[in-house]
Amino acid sequence: MYGMIVQMLAAPGKREELVAILTESTGAMPGCLSYVVALDAANPDAVWVSEAWDSKGSHAASLELPEVKAAIARGRPLIGGMGTFVETQPVGGHGLVAG
Amino acid sequence: MYGMIVQMLAAPGKREELVAILTESTGAMPGCLSYVVALDAANPDAVWVSEAWDSKGSHAASLELPEVKAAIARGRPLIGGMGTFVETQPVGGHGLVAG
Repeated sequence: MYGMIVQMLAAPGKREELVAILTESTGAMPGCLSYVVALDAANPDAVWVSEAWDSKGSHAASLELPEVKAAIARGRPLIGGMGTFVETQPVGGHGLVAG
Repeated sequence: MYGMIVQMLAAPGKREELVAILTESTGAMPGCLSYVVALDAANPDAVWVSEAWDSKGSHAASLELPEVKAAIARGRPLIGGMGTFVETQPVGGHGLVAG
């Protein structure tokens, strides 16, 4: 498995709009096992995305999906900066499900 | 929803053993929607756990489950330190499933 844990920093006042874009297009990405979008409880601009994929290739392929490309184009102006970025190797747990 | 993203630092050489404990007891925790255990790709001692619960109360209650208490007791000596700890409010995505 391949994964990442990413903290995005929304432009001021834009977190809700960014979260809406992040959550709307995650239903049908081939090879995506988990894609959880969460608000940072302490930082009103921060959003965390925790992702698990069956392979690094599936993640890379997702970035070429038309709906993902469109979401990135709409989301980019709402992002004020990037915070933590961690690449991971998910190994198990609960909630890893084929899309 | 309630969540957290936690980076644990295993004692040197103990990551594999710690991960085995973290993943074995996550199947049947009431209110747990996601509990993904992942190796840090860059730090050979680090493990990330990304959790989503239906409520903060369900998470608190899980810590009282006998199997979770036992896992914590076995895991604690394998932990060398704690890294990042973030409380979150998960809002959507893929892979949020009742246990």
